[in-house]
Amino acid sequence: MAYPEPLENLVAAFERFPGIGRRSGERLAFHVLRDPAARELARAIDRAIEGTLRCGVCANVSESDPCSICSDPARDATTVCVVEEPRHVEAIERSGAYRGRYHVLMGAFNPGEGTEPEHLTIEKLVQRVRAGGFREVILGTDPDAEGEATARLLLDAIEGAADGALVITRLARGLPAGSAIEYLHRGVLEDALAGRRPVRRR
Amino acid sequence: MAYPEPLENLVAAFERFPGIGRRSGERLAFHVLRDPAARELARAIDRAIEGTLRCGVCANVSESDPCSICSDPARDATTVCVVEEPRHVEAIERSGAYRGRYHVLMGAFNPGEGTEPEHLTIEKLVQRVRAGGFREVILGTDPDAEGEATARLLLDAIEGAADGALVITRLARGLPAGSAIEYLHRGVLEDALAGRRPVRRR
Repeated sequence: MAYPEPLENLVAAFERFPGIGRRSGERLAFHVLRDPAARELARAIDRAIEGTLRCGVCANVSESDPCSICSDPARDATTVCVVEEPRHVEAIERSGAYRGRYHVLMGAFNPGEGTEPEHLTIEKLVQRVRAGGFREVILGTDPDAEGEATARLLLDAIEGAADGALVITRLARGLPAGSAIEYLHRGVLEDALAGRRPVRRR
Repeated sequence: MAYPEPLENLVAAFERFPGIGRRSGERLAFHVLRDPAARELARAIDRAIEGTLRCGVCANVSESDPCSICSDPARDATTVCVVEEPRHVEAIERSGAYRGRYHVLMGAFNPGEGTEPEHLTIEKLVQRVRAGGFREVILGTDPDAEGEATARLLLDAIEGAADGALVITRLARGLPAGSAIEYLHRGVLEDALAGRRPVRRR
């Protein structure tokens, strides 16, 4: 048995989102009907679409297209750092340690949460790589399971599009600066040991 | 670091839905920005709110308020069957076996999915019980874990509001008519054995 058509359509609209199945769609749709404040979501969707731009180059949420970073001639256009989310760009910018360009995936590969490769801006990245001009692609995904899975996807996708000269790198993993070894968890220490480097002897 | 304000507001609007936390809210909000078809959700919310009525008595989604069942003088107003969802009303109506009224919870208690007691129409049911006039309240929730938990909540809520004469019942559990015992799973057979009844001997 179907619900009244507008309710059925609402369930279907929720179901088109990643990670939302029939049951969740019904649960969210019921919430819309029982909580008048839920209408706010409709307004927020409109305002988010109208009030934000996406950079046509790096896919970041931005105020202009291309965004201020992609259009800045002082930035190194031969290096691109691929990150999961807009706020990762902000974090790296705050560090002041990077002067290249970015590519924003808008998520990480996470089939359990419904985020599949086609939901990410991987195809757009492949096009950028194929267009040439990059000397290095930095896979700057998070150091967690989803980030690792995403990095593997990116590697598969980029390798086919790149010429042999392209260097593909990953951000280093190891001891976080300012931390105390005794409080770091095992995975951090494993990374730090596995990635240890020879030091110059005096 | 915050996202641009319209994006931040969209994440917050998603987060107000049951079962949606910060991470899911971000994931859904990113989907809105990357998939133009997501705007359809905003329209579907508006249309669902505008295109459906809620019965002020039983809380069912309906075409009129009160709904056709609540306003039908031929229905037994002394018996109310509490169900989780609108389609459960439809299913019971199709059976033709019930002539009382309904109360629609709009979901089942399921904290894991974010549906808490306050999301259900339990308070409205308590008000109906307190107003008097019911001889029987049938707890018609699903025969699963959420349905059981919901029935317990209902029992606690109703018992305080009811006078001593109110009969609170649950739908019977046992062998589904038309089934073959060999294919039924263990829980069904357990229910059927636990609920067995004496037959009249000739």
